Order: sequence, then structure tokens, then C-alpha cells
Amino acid sequence: MRLLLLQLNPVIGDLAGNAGKIRDEVVSAGRGAADLIVTPELALTGYPPRDLLLFRDFIGRSVEAARTLAAELEGYPPVLLGGVQSNPAPAGRPLANVAFLLHQGRILQTFGKTLLPTYDVFDEDRYFEPAKGPQILDLKGVRIGISICEDIWNDADFWHRKRYHSDPIPELVGAGARCLVNISASPFTAGKQQLRERMLSGIAQKYRIPLVYVNQTGGNDDLVFDGRSCAFNARGELIARAAAFREDRLALDLFQDRPGEIRHDDFSPESEIWNALVLGTRDYVHKSGFRRALVGLSGGIDSSLVAAVAAEALGSEHVLGVLMPSPFSSEGSITDAQALGKNLGIRTTTLPISGIMDSFDAALAREFTGLPRDITEENLQARIRGTLLMALSNKSGALLLSTGNKSEVAVGYCTLYGDMNGALAVIADVPKTMVYRVARWLNARGPHPVIPETVFLKAPSAELRPDQKDQDSLPPYDILDEILHAHIEQHASPAEIVAEGSDPDLVYRVARMVKGAEFKRRQAPPGIKVTDRAFGTGWRMPLAARDWDRDRGR
Amino acid sequence: MRLLLLQLNPVIGDLAGNAGKIRDEVVSAGRGAADLIVTPELALTGYPPRDLLLFRDFIGRSVEAARTLAAELEGYPPVLLGGVQSNPAPAGRPLANVAFLLHQGRILQTFGKTLLPTYDVFDEDRYFEPAKGPQILDLKGVRIGISICEDIWNDADFWHRKRYHSDPIPELVGAGARCLVNISASPFTAGKQQLRERMLSGIAQKYRIPLVYVNQTGGNDDLVFDGRSCAFNARGELIARAAAFREDRLALDLFQDRPGEIRHDDFSPESEIWNALVLGTRDYVHKSGFRRALVGLSGGIDSSLVAAVAAEALGSEHVLGVLMPSPFSSEGSITDAQALGKNLGIRTTTLPISGIMDSFDAALAREFTGLPRDITEENLQARIRGTLLMALSNKSGALLLSTGNKSEVAVGYCTLYGDMNGALAVIADVPKTMVYRVARWLNARGPHPVIPETVFLKAPSAELRPDQKDQDSLPPYDILDEILHAHIEQHASPAEIVAEGSDPDLVYRVARMVKGAEFKRRQAPPGIKVTDRAFGTGWRMPLAARDWDRDRGR
Repeated sequence: MRLLLLQLNPVIGDLAGNAGKIRDEVVSAGRGAADLIVTPELALTGYPPRDLLLFRDFIGRSVEAARTLAAELEGYPPVLLGGVQSNPAPAGRPLANVAFLLHQGRILQTFGKTLLPTYDVFDEDRYFEPAKGPQILDLKGVRIGISICEDIWNDADFWHRKRYHSDPIPELVGAGARCLVNISASPFTAGKQQLRERMLSGIAQKYRIPLVYVNQTGGNDDLVFDGRSCAFNARGELIARAAAFREDRLALDLFQDRPGEIRHDDFSPESEIWNALVLGTRDYVHKSGFRRALVGLSGGIDSSLVAAVAAEALGSEHVLGVLMPSPFSSEGSITDAQALGKNLGIRTTTLPISGIMDSFDAALAREFTGLPRDITEENLQARIRGTLLMALSNKSGALLLSTGNKSEVAVGYCTLYGDMNGALAVIADVPKTMVYRVARWLNARGPHPVIPETVFLKAPSAELRPDQKDQDSLPPYDILDEILHAHIEQHASPAEIVAEGSDPDLVYRVARMVKGAEFKRRQAPPGIKVTDRAFGTGWRMPLAARDWDRDRGR
Repeated sequence: MRLLLLQLNPVIGDLAGNAGKIRDEVVSAGRGAADLIVTPELALTGYPPRDLLLFRDFIGRSVEAARTLAAELEGYPPVLLGGVQSNPAPAGRPLANVAFLLHQGRILQTFGKTLLPTYDVFDEDRYFEPAKGPQILDLKGVRIGISICEDIWNDADFWHRKRYHSDPIPELVGAGARCLVNISASPFTAGKQQLRERMLSGIAQKYRIPLVYVNQTGGNDDLVFDGRSCAFNARGELIARAAAFREDRLALDLFQDRPGEIRHDDFSPESEIWNALVLGTRDYVHKSGFRRALVGLSGGIDSSLVAAVAAEALGSEHVLGVLMPSPFSSEGSITDAQALGKNLGIRTTTLPISGIMDSFDAALAREFTGLPRDITEENLQARIRGTLLMALSNKSGALLLSTGNKSEVAVGYCTLYGDMNGALAVIADVPKTMVYRVARWLNARGPHPVIPETVFLKAPSAELRPDQKDQDSLPPYDILDEILHAHIEQHASPAEIVAEGSDPDLVYRVARMVKGAEFKRRQAPPGIKVTDRAFGTGWRMPLAARDWDRDRGR
């Protein structure tokens, strides 16, 4: 069984473009390239298409595009194409998430998805009716068990708790499948590929059946798909793996015992996160129809890393760094930002904001008479900068990238309509401690360090008042990040975190800050997901709600 | 069967407060008040609790709160309490949406929800495992069929298409139920109560069974619950209805033939929308822990209506109107805003922005050398105003209300980080044509008109450049709103709208504008839902996506 895996990076909604790319790939591979060519889940629409699926006309055109593609590929090997169709039954959800078998010039057969993820960032029960029974393709005398993404993620031996009552994989094996093909659109989080490979290897071994897994790649809004399509033999050994974070084509023979190609990869979290940020930024900008970006540079570690990501993603000639010093800015901040810009080869410009600060103070003087300066004036500076950046963005057609990290965004140490402004929040899911680690990794990667050493050494500061330091308002970042990990990624309550030994005052204060910042995050731009729980589409919290775990003992 | 319906307005997450309110209601009604006391769905947590449900500790405490309440109410009539519990089975979703029967000092019985809405604003498959089989309560020799909200919304005769394969209502009847009790948290949209009553009446008539429906009231972020709990006799006749848009208690005897109380109501869309906006605004502000609000007043119809809503919701002494004239502001805009403020009895203040505009122009002069003035400078004015409003909000602790209507928000005729700024977008789901209708209704309601007549008569304008009018950039609002209704609320594609006879150039232009504004809406504050499809939690569109219905013939 010679397979050709097309690890593609589709554009959401671009039926003609996505189909055209598949056609070109199949044609260029040639008529004898494989027994079966396999694309990722929903390759025709891109994953996730979200509420585009609620447009009936989109579904109709999507099926039409699959039919057209089938006709164009008559005489080529059969193609297993991820797509969507209506549910013809008089009851049930309106659609089905399917794999079309394009063969002999038409849609010869259709295989449905059985398990529909509806948790975290996934909403598939919103759209799809589950398939019933084993989905089997008989091809050249071989029974192939077809599954779609989540279908292979409910193994009773692998998971502590099964989310679904059925498991399609043993059903496929029971129906006589001699190999398994899974088409996926599985988003990246740090460390996930190792999890996938342990799980897939275990399934291949348990059922003594070779298995191939074809994943999407590319960035789609908050989600990055890391590709890394792979195959295992019946002993559970990895026999092939496609590239990470880019399109790839991988040919393999499932019943041959010699290993196929295993592309070089790097599973260190720093490397993975860097690659995800670069791909996510590049695709967000390009798929939105832009080429250029701009970043406000404060001389701090966050904006330095974001500028480095942007330069790698878009090319340094397409990135503008903007310095906006105030009377509270340190000399080091300006020189560090300039040094960074020089190292990255990006253009920088400097727009001092003190004149604008004065004009706001004058306009507000009467209303603010007799009132002390407070956080209002700090927010004003951030909003002046945000407004300048948006003016540059509007005038130049470059997208603004925001630079807040996950720790800040979690506790609301950021200004809505100020430094939160942007089309994309590049590092909004990277905790501050990991920002430093990725930045260190980047400097070590070479060819030469790009982030000045002084940026690592100085204490983090928003520089919104004289001698301000982050740690005046926040606990040390290593402690903060531990509490946030438990609270955000593991949904531990303050009481549960305290029970594990943390300082109650600190934990309850952090939890209050997290809750108090929900209204800011609701209005934040999408951030690139790299952890198991990112703010955004996978974090759906009420706003006008009361704390249910207030510190009751106090 | 004497029932007491508690139509409550819970605060999301406030387990102690919500339980305390129920306890007080039951105790004050007395030991002989009813055979059964009924609360809305999830009355203990408030609906929707969203991802609070993912905190295991929240679930544990929620069950604990139900048990405590049961103990406190020993000796009082049994209470059917909407709540949540863990799913004890080793497979399936982690939770169940249930009605607890509190009786004899404990949770005597538990009834589960069978049909889990996962469409539009609903995400119940994200959390809940469906119940199996009929949920029957035997009380004083009467078999009562218990259903929860969606369970009663799948009648094969009423709906064109059934979303679910089963219908719990005939199962309850088949199991011998002599009456039906449905506990709900059904969000308001204009005209929905008439739909509910037609549907409920039809079910009562079809199965010849009396039926009672208990709904939540109050505003929770984007959703307003209109209450209007009601009962029907076995002939399908309405025999009782609780108040709209406020808490209420309603006593009735299901097997008595004489009508119970039917509270006065008004189903005109203008009245319904007004009441929803007032309740939604009041609850958002109060449940967020604030008392006061501020609104930017432009002298236009949108900000006039929002200020009127705020004054009614919060009391005029708690509302500040802010005029921020620029050199492009007309004299009429200022006098109209002042007259409105006077009519509403709210304080107004005036902060001219031309000095700040000059300071931005100066800061940007070098970067903008040689470039023509364009939309950048218009956005700048909106962002200066948005920043001033946020400064006033930060300093005073008053929430900012934004004033964009649905038509503007749909086509992106608004400035992100400018006039879109706010904690709540009061009329973001009210189309411009309906804004005028509600404003007219309000003026006619009396005791005297509050919105100056000149506000209705002048052409809508953003006043961001000399002699600008909305209709320079947009089609007339009656035509625009028709296209938007088809595209947004009915998910009609441009091609389908054109096929119905609309001008192709116009339809494709509007659709492009809608798509081009997704990135703005992603960062918008919550808006109060009043139509069948609001932007926000029920509109989940990809951002970096391609138009799939471009005007192919051109």
C-alpha cells in the first residue's frame, strides 16, 4: 500500500485555492505516484472554518469543488480529501465532517467522522452529525480503516477518562481493517507531538496494525498546526515523519518493513514555541492579505522577542520598530531598542509622546481638578502609544503586532486600547518565564545574538511612572507563572492551589486579578496558542460574574 | 397541584447569593405555600456559567450549596432547583445539567437534561452529558414530567427540521406524566415569547396535558433573559404568565380550570427591545460591581438612545454625558447633545479635542511627510475621543458604554480603539432602522420626549471630516439593513441575496465590508443580543480567511 501524504497549509474558506493546490500536487506527483493520496481533515475548506459552515451556500460550493476536483483528477491515483457535506437525514445536526474518496472522476465514497471534539478551542457539535459504524475503504484488495482526527483520540488504555462512549478504532479493526488512515487537523501545543506519537504508537502496537496520520500545517488565527504527519508499523515503531511547521509531501509504503523518511525535528519547547510563533505570525499576516508589520519597541524582553519573530516571519525589510519614549523612559530602553533594531536589520523610528501627554492633561485638567494622579495617567501613556501605532498602521498598511505575554495578560498588567492594541497578540500564550527561555534559545541559535544582553539583565518595567518595576505590583514571575499554570491550564481553584502549599494571600490575589482582567481579554486580539489552555477561543468566561472562591477564611 | 414559580435573576457564579435568595423566597412564601416550588434552569449558578463549569471545585461547591439549601429548607415544600453535578460514569462528558428535588432536608432526586443546545450562543455539549430516558417526579400521587429548557424545543410538528433524534416530551407523556414542568434559561430575542407560547400551547394541546414553563430573568453579559414564565392548561390555553424583564413569583394550580394571573405585557418590538436594553445595561453594570456609566454624546441618534437607556437603567444621577467636539463638529451636534442631557437630567461635560489632534499631527509629521490625509486622520479623532472617555472612566470608576449600532458594527463603519471602546456595547445588536423606531417609541411613551426632534431629522454623520455623511460611504440604511438581515441573521450568501433581486454591486460590496470588519468585531465589547443572530458569542467567524463568494461574474 503505497501512500502519498499531502501535508498542506490551506487558507480558510479558499475553496478554489485549496482545491487548486491539491490538484497541482497530485498532477505533479504523477499517475503512478501512489495507491492512495491522503490530505488532512477539511483540507478543502481549511480547519477550522468555524461559522462559514453555517452558510448553506458555502457547503454547496464546497461539495461542488470536491466534485470538480474529482473530475480534474480522473486517471490519477485515488485521493482521500477532507471536506464537508450536508446531513441529508430529516433530523440531527446539519452537516457532516467527511473524507471524500475522489476516484474515477467522481466522489466514489464518503467516510464520516464519529467523534466530534467540543471542548477547549473545538466546537464540532455546533455543526456536525456523528457518523455511525466503521468507515472502511476497500482498495486494491486491502481493507483500510478510515478515521478523522478525534476518532483516534479516545483509547481506553491511554486516557484516564474517555470523553466518548464509543471508540471507532477497535470497530475498524473488528471490521477487518488491515491498516488505519487518520486524517487530522490537530493544533500545536508545546510537547504535543510526543504525546501524539506515544498514543499512535500504542494503538498500532495494541491492535498490531500499521497506521498513518496526516496532519494539517499552517497558522489559522489563534491556532498553529505543526504538521508532523507520521506513520507507524504494526509493532508501533515510527517509520516516517513529515516536516514540522511547513508543508511537506511524504511517500511511504505501509507494509514495507524498512523505515520511511523521518525528517529532522527538534522537540525542545523553546524551539517548538519559536517555530509556532513564526509560522502563526507569518500566516496571520499573509492570509489576511498583508505583507508588513509594525511593533512598538520598549527595550524590554517581550517586544524584543516579538520583533524577532516578525523579522523571521515576514523578512526584516517588512518590519518597522517604533520607539515612543516618555519622560519616564530610561536611557537604556531607548538604546536597547535601537540595538535590537540594528541586530534584526529592521527600520526603527522614534516618536516621543510627551507633547501628546501634555495635550491630554490640558484637555482633562478641569475634570481632574483636585484629583490625585493614579493609574489613569499610566493608562493614558499606553493609549497614546497604542493610538500612534494604529495611525502608523492605518497610513502604511502594516499590521500592528501586540507584545503582551501570557503572565501579563492573565493578571491584567496591560492597558486595554493601549499596549493591547494589535491585529495579533504574538506571545499572548507564552508565560513570561518562557519568553526569557525562548529569547535565550534564539540568541544561542545564532548566527549571532539578536537581543541585547542588557535586555535580559534589567528588571522588567512598564516605565509608566518614575522607577516603576513589574515586581512592585506582581509577584516574581517564576512564582506567578506556577500559580497561573495551575489556575489557567489545570482549572485549579485558589483553594486547591493553596492546599498544594502556596501562600494564600498571594494565590487569592492572583486569582482576583485573573478574574478582574476578563473584560480586557474579551477585547484582546487573537493570540497564538502554544499551551494546553490559551486565552481566546478555548477560554470562555463570564464577565459580569461574582467570585465563587473568595478567600472564605479571612 | 399548586405550584409556586420563582422567576429569578441570579448572578453568575454567586452560589451563596443565589442560594440565599431562593432560601429567602421559600421561607417568606411559607410552609404551606405550594405542593412544589420551581426555579429556573441552573438557578444556583446562573445561566450561562460558561467555563466556570470547567473548575472541578466549582462543581463540588455547587452541589454542596444545593445540599445546604435542602437542609435549610427542611419542612418547607419541595423545591425543584436548577443546578449542575459531576457525571459519575467513567466515560462521557464530565457534567450533567440537572434539576435537584430538594425535599425532606436533602437532595431527594435528580432529573437530567436530555437535549443540549450547541448552536448560536449555546455551548452545552462542551460541558454536559445528556440524560437518558424520561425524567419523572412522583409527587402527592401525581406523575410530573420534568424537562429542562431545550428538552421541550424539538417538537416534530412545530419545527421544519429536528436538531435531535429524540423528543423527551412524548417520552414523558408515554411514561404516564399528568403534567409537564419545564425549567428554562431561554434568552430574549424580539418576538421570541410569542414563538414560545405558540410552541408550548401546541404541545399542551397535542398531548392534552397541562404545562408550566419557568424562565430565568436578568442580563448576563450579552444575553438578556426576559422571564415571562407561563402555564397552559390541557387545551393549550394560557392560564398564567409572570412579568417580563424582572423577577416575579407566580402561584398557580395546574389542574384548576380558571385562569391564573396573566401579568400585563407589551410585545411590540420597540417596547421589548427597549426593556431588554435597559435590563441588560443595568445588570451588566451592577453585576460587574459598578453603579455609574458614561457615554460619549455626538448629538446623533445612537448616542442619544444609549444615554436614555443608561439613565433609565442606572438613574440619571449615575450617568455622565461627554461632548468632545472637533473642528468638524456641527453647531447642531453640540446643542442637540446638550438638549438631550438636559431632558434626561444627566450631567454633561465638554472636552474639545482640537489641541490633542494638533499634538498627534505634530508627533506624526515626520513619518507622514508627503502622504495625503486619509482615513488615518479620521480614526485618530475617534481614538482621541475613546482615550478621553477611558481616562474619565478610569478616574471616576464609571463604566464606559459604547454607542455603535448593528448596521455600523456589521460593515465596520466604526473605529477600533475609538468609538468601539466600552465595557458594554448597548445597541450593537440593534439595526440602525430599529434604533430610530425605538427612539420614536421612547419619545412617544412620555411623559415627555427626551430625544430632540432635530436628532431625528438630520442626516447621520460621523463628523470626522467636513460635510461627511454616512450615506457617502454606505447605502441608505433601510436597504443596508435588509441585506444585513439576510446575510447575518439568515446566513444568506451574497449570491443568494442577489438571486432574490438585490443589486449585485451593492450586495457584494456590503458582504466584503462585513468580512473586512471581522477583526474589529473580534475585539468589540459584548453587545446586548436582541435579534436571532447577534455578533459576539453566537457569531464565530475566522479572521485570516478568504472570501469564498467573491463576485465571480465580474
